[in-house]
Amino acid sequence: MRERVRETIRRYRLLERGDGVVIGVSGGPDSMALLHVLLALRDEYDLSLTAVHVHHQLRGAEADADAAFVADWCRAHGVPCRVVRVDVRAHAAKHRLGLQVAARQLRYAALREAAEEAGAGKIALGHHADDQVETVLMRLVRGTGVGGLAGIPISRAEGSATLIRPLLHVRRAEIEAYCAAHGVPYRLDASNRSRAYLRNRVRLDVVPLLSALNPRFPEAVCQLAEVARAEDAYLEERAREALEGALRRRTADGVVLDRQALVRLPLALQRRVIKLILSYLCVDEPDRFFAHIEAVRRLAASDKPAGCHRVAGAWWVETDYDVLVFGRGEPDSREGLDFCYPLAVPGETLVPELGCTIRCRVTDRPLEDGELSPLWAVFDYKRLSGPLVVRARRPGDRMTVWGLAGHKKVKDILIDEKVPHRVRRRMPVICAGETILWLPGVRRSAEAPVTAATRRFLYMEVENDA
Amino acid sequence: MRERVRETIRRYRLLERGDGVVIGVSGGPDSMALLHVLLALRDEYDLSLTAVHVHHQLRGAEADADAAFVADWCRAHGVPCRVVRVDVRAHAAKHRLGLQVAARQLRYAALREAAEEAGAGKIALGHHADDQVETVLMRLVRGTGVGGLAGIPISRAEGSATLIRPLLHVRRAEIEAYCAAHGVPYRLDASNRSRAYLRNRVRLDVVPLLSALNPRFPEAVCQLAEVARAEDAYLEERAREALEGALRRRTADGVVLDRQALVRLPLALQRRVIKLILSYLCVDEPDRFFAHIEAVRRLAASDKPAGCHRVAGAWWVETDYDVLVFGRGEPDSREGLDFCYPLAVPGETLVPELGCTIRCRVTDRPLEDGELSPLWAVFDYKRLSGPLVVRARRPGDRMTVWGLAGHKKVKDILIDEKVPHRVRRRMPVICAGETILWLPGVRRSAEAPVTAATRRFLYMEVENDA
Repeated sequence: MRERVRETIRRYRLLERGDGVVIGVSGGPDSMALLHVLLALRDEYDLSLTAVHVHHQLRGAEADADAAFVADWCRAHGVPCRVVRVDVRAHAAKHRLGLQVAARQLRYAALREAAEEAGAGKIALGHHADDQVETVLMRLVRGTGVGGLAGIPISRAEGSATLIRPLLHVRRAEIEAYCAAHGVPYRLDASNRSRAYLRNRVRLDVVPLLSALNPRFPEAVCQLAEVARAEDAYLEERAREALEGALRRRTADGVVLDRQALVRLPLALQRRVIKLILSYLCVDEPDRFFAHIEAVRRLAASDKPAGCHRVAGAWWVETDYDVLVFGRGEPDSREGLDFCYPLAVPGETLVPELGCTIRCRVTDRPLEDGELSPLWAVFDYKRLSGPLVVRARRPGDRMTVWGLAGHKKVKDILIDEKVPHRVRRRMPVICAGETILWLPGVRRSAEAPVTAATRRFLYMEVENDA
Repeated sequence: MRERVRETIRRYRLLERGDGVVIGVSGGPDSMALLHVLLALRDEYDLSLTAVHVHHQLRGAEADADAAFVADWCRAHGVPCRVVRVDVRAHAAKHRLGLQVAARQLRYAALREAAEEAGAGKIALGHHADDQVETVLMRLVRGTGVGGLAGIPISRAEGSATLIRPLLHVRRAEIEAYCAAHGVPYRLDASNRSRAYLRNRVRLDVVPLLSALNPRFPEAVCQLAEVARAEDAYLEERAREALEGALRRRTADGVVLDRQALVRLPLALQRRVIKLILSYLCVDEPDRFFAHIEAVRRLAASDKPAGCHRVAGAWWVETDYDVLVFGRGEPDSREGLDFCYPLAVPGETLVPELGCTIRCRVTDRPLEDGELSPLWAVFDYKRLSGPLVVRARRPGDRMTVWGLAGHKKVKDILIDEKVPHRVRRRMPVICAGETILWLPGVRRSAEAPVTAATRRFLYMEVENDA
């Protein structure tokens, strides 16, 4: 076995000469074998080894005995050893985590810290091929995509260190045989036989059943994991490129995508781009991804200009003509806004609902462009009657339109002009009495036009607050 | 259930108005339910339905009764029905197939034929969501890549028809409930309960165990299949592009790839390109792919200029400096060729071992390029002594080289010039007696150079036979 581990270390470049290595040692056969193998390679690679035993304080005297066992063995074999006590229950309670997740977080944190203190670039763990098989099957049972089937990587970054798993291509039985052959002692964790944990049920029930159907089943799963890892990495890279290509902009709360750019992508990349965004923004439960992803895809591909899908928590995804908006909080209500303020003429009127200001100026000469904000309209002041107000849109609003006899529904104007819904909802309506004068940013009415006879000009400007 | 099937048909565009549909009807609950549902949709879609029952002649009276049952039901419900008898045992014996594979081949052939005769563009089959789960798990047990996890497609081309599976998103239990609710009769195949078949063991043992760990396990597998299908299709397309990009040429027996172009690809595409070639050329057992693919990858990435990996049967893959050659038969032996022929001067000498011809011309003036084949050399004829011959390379061959005192080993010349091994092996050596004059395509010796004093020119040309 030692030769195969050395070959794995060489092929995947897990160690370099002079490496500092922190080894996670629980005291079970896997980590004791790993410690023993690395000790045998210490001179060859000129390694500085440090054993780290994380004491989870969950199993009472048993756990104390594990810690003492590891410390004793290390002392006898000249390996520096640290025992780190972590409070799993407190951490789980504080962050509302399951005990297993909490223990894992604290264990990896302790290893990272030990690596930093020891100035070690590598953290070695004793995961083996059967752990890989169990991990892939657990993910399959819980629900996963191709990425989940990639299982445990043989090496990856962990903080500023590199986490390595030199035993990943070795079977559990080989490790036990190695321990027996080399007189490596170990302690067994009684909880490994409890069917309360999914991993144990997979190990005790599922793997034996499937191995009975194909004795080479474990190898087949490890191969699948290896293939899936590379394909997942490739797809992820293509998806990140595609996301950059489809991204219109990032907002404070989310992102805005080019809807057509998304829909034109191959199906696999559409799904991965949406997943990237959802996993970044809001969804952290992989088994809930699929339904959301498909809903967002349908929303984007639909021929309706506007639609909305609620994701997790306060997150939603909205289509609005040519964009797909991922955002948080209540999507602006279409009906909810209702306000009406008299306009100060001359003067400035704040519309807090919209975060904008309407400025009115009355002049006896036309103004130049440079004197005006980008969003403005001008009226013959003398021809206006009724109080000037700014108000929210109301159902049934109608307005006169240049070149058209009579009135047109504001709703139809907005549709014809393809005004995005998020603009419509935040659009002020400016009136003289009941008569709509101006839909800023959309259309001016045919009311009170400026002519050669105009003597008093009413300039209105809309400015959005920064 | 009928509504969900209708929705599936609509979303995946499985049927169009006026379609002719051949339905594979075994008489079991799945196919009877499918027949019943399509009968209910007949008017809506203006369908021409034909039921086809394939009689495998394997289960004696049971099978006869199945055929009669289907024919009777169809007669009673006004559906044209054809019973096609196929000889599975004979087909299996002739093509050395397992009975299940043979039965499947004949069944699909019968359905294709029936579709052609009926002028039907669609072939409908009763596969459902539990079949999907079983298929994915069977592939996982046997060993598979991401493509295998894609499971059963909801539609695909089958000959000139399209094969559709309208029940693919419906569970077996729903189908049974539908049959009970609508009084749809069916017959059960006793062999479905035999644990001799892998599919049955998966259905009877594996799925219940995994569903006990997660009740939503079947849905999770169907989602994985859907995700894997799209990702597999995308990867396959990228791999085909990458193969075109790396392809130097096709040979009678195989292909030649640009070695660097392959090695520079992302790992996932390297594997898929090699798999495309191997599956096209020779390997048809998916579980044997992985080891071959990895061996070929290592061969290509190795820093040795030449190497060889034997694949299945007579197939091999060879590196040769900048190319990777996939070929069949014995790779040309490096030592095996041995021949020696006197050269006809003037005249043509055929070298059957190499499939080439050496032409010698003696002139009293230099020839122009246009008068010569691309591969030629010229000598001062008067300064040559000894019989002119063409022979195979021999160990220890040495040759004079321009600008170098003494001789150089032919082997070293070939290495220094990076002559591909397949060229070396098929290279003629042209001598005057024991003195090597020319290694065509590689180097001319320093013997008998043409000078101002030359009066008789010996032109030699090598032409490869078409």
